[in-house]
Amino acid sequence: MSAAPSGNLLVAQSGGPTAVINNSLYGIIKESKKHPEINRIYGSLHGIEGVLEENIVDLNEESLENIEGLKEAPASALGSIRYKVTEDDYSKILSVFEKLNIRYFFYIGGNDSMDTADKVARLSRESGRDLRVIGVPKTVDNDLVETDHCPGYGSAARYTAITVREIGIDVESLPPPVTVYETMGRNSGWLTASTALARGDKYPAPNLIYCPERPLDKDRFLNDVQKTYDEMGYALIAVSEGLKDKDGNPISMAEDEVKSDDFGHALPGGVGSRLSDLISDELGLRARDEKPGLAARCSSQLASEADREEARRLGTEAVISAMDGLSGKMVALNRRDTERYQVEIVPVPLAKVANAEKKMPSEFINAAGNDVTKKFFEYARPLIGGKLPEYVKLEKKRING
Amino acid sequence: MSAAPSGNLLVAQSGGPTAVINNSLYGIIKESKKHPEINRIYGSLHGIEGVLEENIVDLNEESLENIEGLKEAPASALGSIRYKVTEDDYSKILSVFEKLNIRYFFYIGGNDSMDTADKVARLSRESGRDLRVIGVPKTVDNDLVETDHCPGYGSAARYTAITVREIGIDVESLPPPVTVYETMGRNSGWLTASTALARGDKYPAPNLIYCPERPLDKDRFLNDVQKTYDEMGYALIAVSEGLKDKDGNPISMAEDEVKSDDFGHALPGGVGSRLSDLISDELGLRARDEKPGLAARCSSQLASEADREEARRLGTEAVISAMDGLSGKMVALNRRDTERYQVEIVPVPLAKVANAEKKMPSEFINAAGNDVTKKFFEYARPLIGGKLPEYVKLEKKRING
Repeated sequence: MSAAPSGNLLVAQSGGPTAVINNSLYGIIKESKKHPEINRIYGSLHGIEGVLEENIVDLNEESLENIEGLKEAPASALGSIRYKVTEDDYSKILSVFEKLNIRYFFYIGGNDSMDTADKVARLSRESGRDLRVIGVPKTVDNDLVETDHCPGYGSAARYTAITVREIGIDVESLPPPVTVYETMGRNSGWLTASTALARGDKYPAPNLIYCPERPLDKDRFLNDVQKTYDEMGYALIAVSEGLKDKDGNPISMAEDEVKSDDFGHALPGGVGSRLSDLISDELGLRARDEKPGLAARCSSQLASEADREEARRLGTEAVISAMDGLSGKMVALNRRDTERYQVEIVPVPLAKVANAEKKMPSEFINAAGNDVTKKFFEYARPLIGGKLPEYVKLEKKRING
Repeated sequence: MSAAPSGNLLVAQSGGPTAVINNSLYGIIKESKKHPEINRIYGSLHGIEGVLEENIVDLNEESLENIEGLKEAPASALGSIRYKVTEDDYSKILSVFEKLNIRYFFYIGGNDSMDTADKVARLSRESGRDLRVIGVPKTVDNDLVETDHCPGYGSAARYTAITVREIGIDVESLPPPVTVYETMGRNSGWLTASTALARGDKYPAPNLIYCPERPLDKDRFLNDVQKTYDEMGYALIAVSEGLKDKDGNPISMAEDEVKSDDFGHALPGGVGSRLSDLISDELGLRARDEKPGLAARCSSQLASEADREEARRLGTEAVISAMDGLSGKMVALNRRDTERYQVEIVPVPLAKVANAEKKMPSEFINAAGNDVTKKFFEYARPLIGGKLPEYVKLEKKRING
């Protein structure tokens, strides 16, 4: 490997924000200041769009207070984008990089972004230019391959677990018979599964969990709900926004209504509302739906400190990897096989991550398809950053009358 | 007034829980232990239903840890209920009170509960029994008359303001063009209005606010949304679950779909989803809805300390008022006309509070019906317990290229 070239650094954020995506940005900025080969630290506004439109900002101009504040700031501080880069765009990207003397490019994003980063790395290498491209993973959906988990997921899972615990206590105290809690997650059930972390000795909810990895059978679903209600006097049910029936049709809407985003991914929505209507109509039980939606991914107040720290470490390691000569890699989290949770950061090829999707493995979903397994708990518990808040429940000793 | 009678105390919680309803229970328990006239402190499970079914617990048996934990515990620790007490029920209630030698009855609830408490007080007085009945207000809807505000509202408003601030930063960073944020509030816009508290110098969202006190005109609404989107590049819109059109029909559903609860109140729902569909269909803008629902009323993590403290004070004062000989009253919050926010606790007749509803006054809603006024801010700011979290925004100084 050649020595680290002298030039400028460009960082961009892409896709749905997370509560900790700015921690990766923080890690990149702090580490780059240590390397004299890096002249200026630039940020591209709204992901790759900022490169195409030459909306580039100078991060050296930010105050220390602003940089430190990134650790708590929700959403994507540089702005984000969902945009499918075209073949024509790539030559524009490379020419802007050349013009600005960009030698280091860090893209914090999900699998679409890793695809973009991979192509930029490849085209640049083909042109003989020493551009170091490193991807930094983020997504609340936790669906990137080649990494144990994705920064952002732990915080969204913590938000979800705390919120479901609190809602569970609420519905137990005043049962609106059935409450359907809808989580994000188009094709993978990681966030839906995280509702299970709400449980504890005193907290039975959620009672049922439906991930999109398993087709939803309406009759079995209604049967599950009725059985839970008969037993508990209420039911708190977690469902993924991306649930589909056995023919692959989204539960959220009739087939002719399906909308899609710029990547051609179907945009689900309204599953909780549809299923609570179904429960009312078919079982005659009053049902309401809850859909915190974006709140789960942007809540700084309920974010996981462990997640924040990992996001910063990944940013730091991304810079170190580039200085060491790596390019076309994503910095990934590799969980060590130790009793106490430990992760190491390893580079993996961007090409392997690009456009692939990691679903929940079978061993994380129970046979009936209405709950998670103990193995899921073992996987997810360390990611949410310590214990959830504990709330008292009264003993309620009956008087003799 | 006769001296305080010797006997037992009964406390119950009713209606939708709040984040601080257990603080009122705490205040009642702590204060009653100071009065030797009070022998046992009983709790009725699930409001008045616990009396009718003789599900009564002995709160003297609870550990100190449990009692102290009430200050943080979400939902109604004694369980709650929505149940319209019948004429027949009242004689049963009075006979259970006699059997258990109840001399002090505290009902923590909303206007339906104040009606129940009022009738119990009246019937007891007519029967010549010295029963002291005091109502303690609670409701996130903030719709009780005769009190400046209701405990529970400040916390739900704080949750809402923080959440909308975070979501606002999220949508600004990655605009899904339009986001519709639905809040609770059947007939009054207090919670919807509280979204305005999310704003600050750096935080423009929410951009539009629609309270149920004003009928929603769809054309004007769509016009507002388009205008905001043209100006901002996105729109974050707060709507009440109880929005109605000019004919009084809920926006949430077609007329024949309207459901109602046990009190005959219409049960709204799905406004956010309907309006985001409308925006997609009519304006061709992608829109999504957020509906944190119950989370707003049960979030202990984002509760207002000021609200918690007032809820405890009301519980304390309820006991003191009863010991002083009052009955048939609700302890209410009276805001002093001072520069710095101060409240005093005053007794008001339960009969005046029963079944009445306080809507947002005209002076709190702007002329266009799409925002709140400065007067609302002055009213609501002190209730949410101090400043909201501040998050940095980068300077984003453009490079010359």
